[in-house]
Parts: sequence; structure tokens; C-alpha cells
Amino acid sequence: MRNIKLTIEYDGTAYHGWQIQPGLRTIQGEIKEQIAQITQQEVNLIGAGRTDAGVHALAQVANFQTESTIDLTALQRGLNSLLPPDIVVKAVEEVGEEFHARFSARSKVYEYHILNRSYPSALLRAYAWFIPHELNLPAMKKCGKLLIGSHDFSSFRASGDESRHSIREIIRLEIEQRKDNLIVIEANAFLREMARSIVGTLVDVGREKTTFEEFKEIFEAHDRRRAGMTAPAHGLFLSEVRY
Amino acid sequence: MRNIKLTIEYDGTAYHGWQIQPGLRTIQGEIKEQIAQITQQEVNLIGAGRTDAGVHALAQVANFQTESTIDLTALQRGLNSLLPPDIVVKAVEEVGEEFHARFSARSKVYEYHILNRSYPSALLRAYAWFIPHELNLPAMKKCGKLLIGSHDFSSFRASGDESRHSIREIIRLEIEQRKDNLIVIEANAFLREMARSIVGTLVDVGREKTTFEEFKEIFEAHDRRRAGMTAPAHGLFLSEVRY
Repeated sequence: MRNIKLTIEYDGTAYHGWQIQPGLRTIQGEIKEQIAQITQQEVNLIGAGRTDAGVHALAQVANFQTESTIDLTALQRGLNSLLPPDIVVKAVEEVGEEFHARFSARSKVYEYHILNRSYPSALLRAYAWFIPHELNLPAMKKCGKLLIGSHDFSSFRASGDESRHSIREIIRLEIEQRKDNLIVIEANAFLREMARSIVGTLVDVGREKTTFEEFKEIFEAHDRRRAGMTAPAHGLFLSEVRY
Repeated sequence: MRNIKLTIEYDGTAYHGWQIQPGLRTIQGEIKEQIAQITQQEVNLIGAGRTDAGVHALAQVANFQTESTIDLTALQRGLNSLLPPDIVVKAVEEVGEEFHARFSARSKVYEYHILNRSYPSALLRAYAWFIPHELNLPAMKKCGKLLIGSHDFSSFRASGDESRHSIREIIRLEIEQRKDNLIVIEANAFLREMARSIVGTLVDVGREKTTFEEFKEIFEAHDRRRAGMTAPAHGLFLSEVRY
């Protein structure tokens, strides 16, 4: 058996997220179907992270086992010619049998894009959260620092999340001002909607609806109902999976 | 009468170009309709350049005369709330009565984006021409230099172009390698499809299908049938109009 690793870029706009769901268009479903088409075998396609509906990826990672002897370049070209243009396989590699896209991942990096100016953007409308209000970035940075390290993140977890425990380690949380405002979060793993829930709550701090002390209380309450809104999916990108 | 200048960003994907055409969705048509909605008056909306179907704009400029006394910020907010999200008014200013978006323009700048790598991009699929073949950029730059200055550009003109003469002045033609390859062309004015026809012919040079001597012959033949393919519309952006 060969173990094949895929690196995938996608525009999540038209999909119900990564994970296969009956009757819905999903990224995993589209790729799995085209692998079966090319190799003539059903595969178990394992993704590093289950991105939600509407979330994008610059470099999602997935792997599958196959008995096919297909050349890797031919597999990549074949997938890119069969997949819809909003899903692209950037790289195909053969990896050791121990490699598991999800369990082997040491950390994942998400980028959240905020367009912070008085008028929206026609070209970025599907790729950044448009916020016309002034944002207090130093206050957001100060709150962001509280989250770094291993903590119970249950304040920033979706109600339907099924993880057994809610301790996660945030390795890096950066708020940068580039062309648009960027919040980069690297963690060993994420609870469901954790990145978007952190971003939404930090934006409340930026808009001065929430103070540093209130943010600290929300974080320490371990209660999802205390946190701010979940930031919209279309600003979020899974940008890297580290192994 | 007030003379109002608009600066507009748009994603041209869903439109049949700038110019109003009966029964078709156009950028000019959408904006004109919403101005009438807000001011309750029909206006003559003059655009700096008639971008073709599928071409984008980072900063198209247009103007119209109106008797409305509406506040400019209210006009901008109103337009952005009524317009579809792929058309955005970036700025609204009141200008002197002599200002004419088309005739006052000293030059226009177009950017053409080429994604030159072995696999396409899911996120840039509507914003760059994907070319997986190697491109000889020094050869393209050498040919590009020939075009700078005032010349007869009839070799790079659409068959349906109705301009009275085909002399135009290219002020700047730069080929840059950034994240993607970028061809920037600034000219006093453009013939129809001139930018895309130049890009298509330069790409033939980059792919070494056309030599420097052949490119020179094509340019001097003043015959559209000799030039290369017209580059696809979705890589082209009207990026600036200079007054």
C-alpha cells in the first residue's frame, strides 16, 4: 500500500465545509470522488482539519492509502483537470505509512482577514470580513496575548463541538496590519469554531464594546454564551499544517 | 448643476463589461440605475474607459451631472448599500464642471496578472491567467520596450474597434515578477482589446513561439490578423486613471 499526501488550496464559498455530509457539496467529497475516478478504487481520505462551511484553505493537507501505482505527477494533473476550479491540488507526495494527516500534525495555522476601512471591497468580498468601524489594535493585541499557551478554550467552542476535552495550546497569536488586518493563530489543534469565536470576541475588544477585564472574564468563564459573535467564515483561511 | 466624480472598484466576472447594452448586465447600467434610485433623476454616467466583459477595475473613474443636493458621504453609503457586492464605490468627490471622466484623462494604467506555475490557483482563478509553461521574461521585456512611445497600434486592435485612428502613446510597459507575473501598461488611451492583445502576443514571445524579429514584424504590419491570441479578460484590471 502507498500512502499519498495531498496539499490542497480551496475557495470554500460554494461548499458545506471539508467533511463529507450526505447530499451536500463538500471539499472532501469532491476530492474523494475524483481519486476514485482516477485510481478506480474507493479511498479513505483523511484531512488535517475539518474546515467549516465557507472557510478557505491555502494549504489543507490530506492523505489516503492506495494500491494504485499511478505516477504522482499524473495523479496531480488528473485531479486538477477533474476537480472544479475552486479546488486545486498544489502538491502530491508519497509519505511513510505512519503519516496521518490529522494525528501527525504538530500544529495548524489559521489566518483571519479583516478589511478595515470605510467602504467594502468588490474583489475581496468573499475573502475578508469588512468592518467599517475603527478598531483599537493595541487593545486587541493585549487580549490576544492572554490566550497564548495551554488553556481550557471552552469559552471559544461551538455548541455542537464533540471534542473530549477543551484544552488546546495556542503557540502564536499575531495581529498584523498589512494590506488588510490579519489575525494569525497557530495552535496544536482547534476546537470547532474556536478561531472564528476568538476573532469575533477580539473584534468586540477592538470596537471597545468589551474591555480587557471583560475579555479576561469571558476567557476564564469557560462558557460559550459569554463570548462575542463568531466571526464570519469567509474571512478565515487554513494557511498551514505543520508536521 | 453639480459634477460628481466616482472612483469604482469592480469584479467584472458577472458583467458584460462597463458599457450599457440593452438586456445585459453591465457595470455602467447598475451604477446609473442606483444613482437614479437615490437622486430620483436620470443621469448621464461617463466612464473613463469601457472595460470589456469580464475585465476588472481597481479604480475606474466616472462622472455625472446632477441637480441633487445630496451629501457626498450619504451618496457613497447609499450606492454601496444598493449596488451588488461586486461593485463598490471607493470615493465620491465634487469636481469642476470642466471635468469629463473620459476626455480629461491624461492616461490609463492597466495591470495584467499571469499566474505562472505548474498548478492553478483556487483563489485566483477569476483574477489571473494561469500559464503552466515556462516564460522567457527577458525576451518579453525586450519586445515590450519596442511598444513604448507613440505608434500605430492597429496590430493590437479588436476587429470591431471604431476609433477614428489607431495612434496611441504607451508611456510605460513593465513586466514585473511579484507573487504572480504582472504586466503593467500605461497609455494615453487604448484601442479596443489593445492591452489583452499586447499581453497575448508577449506571452507567445515568453513561450518562445514568437521571436523578437517576428514580434517586430507583427507590430509593424499594422494587421490584427498577424498578432497572437487575445489574453483572457479575467487577468486584466483597470488599475488607475490619471488626470
